[in-house]
Amino acid sequence: MNQTEREDFARAMLRDVVAAVIQAGCEPTILSTHPFGIESARTVVMKEGLNEALNTVLATLKEPVMIIMSDLPLTTPEVVRRVLFAGGDASIVPGRGGGTNVLFIKRPWEFHVDYYGSSFLDHMRIFKELGWEAMVVDSHRLSTDIDEKEDLVEVLLHGTGKSREYLNNLGFSIEIDAMGRVGIRREFR
Amino acid sequence: MNQTEREDFARAMLRDVVAAVIQAGCEPTILSTHPFGIESARTVVMKEGLNEALNTVLATLKEPVMIIMSDLPLTTPEVVRRVLFAGGDASIVPGRGGGTNVLFIKRPWEFHVDYYGSSFLDHMRIFKELGWEAMVVDSHRLSTDIDEKEDLVEVLLHGTGKSREYLNNLGFSIEIDAMGRVGIRREFR
Repeated sequence: MNQTEREDFARAMLRDVVAAVIQAGCEPTILSTHPFGIESARTVVMKEGLNEALNTVLATLKEPVMIIMSDLPLTTPEVVRRVLFAGGDASIVPGRGGGTNVLFIKRPWEFHVDYYGSSFLDHMRIFKELGWEAMVVDSHRLSTDIDEKEDLVEVLLHGTGKSREYLNNLGFSIEIDAMGRVGIRREFR
Repeated sequence: MNQTEREDFARAMLRDVVAAVIQAGCEPTILSTHPFGIESARTVVMKEGLNEALNTVLATLKEPVMIIMSDLPLTTPEVVRRVLFAGGDASIVPGRGGGTNVLFIKRPWEFHVDYYGSSFLDHMRIFKELGWEAMVVDSHRLSTDIDEKEDLVEVLLHGTGKSREYLNNLGFSIEIDAMGRVGIRREFR
């Protein structure tokens, strides 16, 4: 994908996340370093890094909050509800490779995030220090953040929204090689 | 890993799967091309390929059956129960990349498997042809089959059984590089 396609695909993924979150009964706010043209949610622009920006926001909140990354196009209302109703003081969905893809924090004013690196382990440690019961939600959909070419296979296989549609429009499809391995190909048209 | 280590690790993964399945209330049978030294389950040795062997067995069954791959060391009793109680006529857990990691079939004598390639899509097509309601179970644990080096990160992060213990004994641990990416390293001792 070229730069414009990447940006359009990022916007399609964000739209899918926002749509699922709204359908699950939440009111999303987009936190971004630049204004985003999505009509279904307001955007708060903050120039700081992810941790600083989120921790500034968390300190001001007075009710539970879910923090969900925008590169999770397989998000469905059902799995958002699994996160919301997992119980405990907080829930967390690890990303493949040790990141944190979703957090649901019932008392955000007591919490601080620590993204980057092995943030799943870092967040689990913070929960422990706070004496909180943290529920780890087991979801392929939410553990699949899209940052490599192979991840696109998952979108083509399991996506139901704008992101899959966008990939299809770009000419991407699933290809099975001679060894029976599943990959993707792009037909330029 | 050398050949012996690979075999021992494969046996550790199988033990973890068998233990979780037993704890979920099932009676496992191991289907293999060669005898496997696991005391907690009987082994049926069949020399045919996976599809042929399984389809021969399925035709003889008279009650529901779950087919679970042996390279799923993150299997827990909880997620096995999610598969068993998903509802519908069958449940399926896709593997990352389009494979089929788990099937639960309520009337196995009416079904046939079609592994290799994009078997998730193939099995979904078979369900549709049968007019069955198939439940897709969304699980990171069960979608994570271990066949590449990067998959070991998931075992070190989320494993709770013999497989993780075995990796730790071999000197594997999680390493975070200068870019904050999570990888694994092995310390030979």
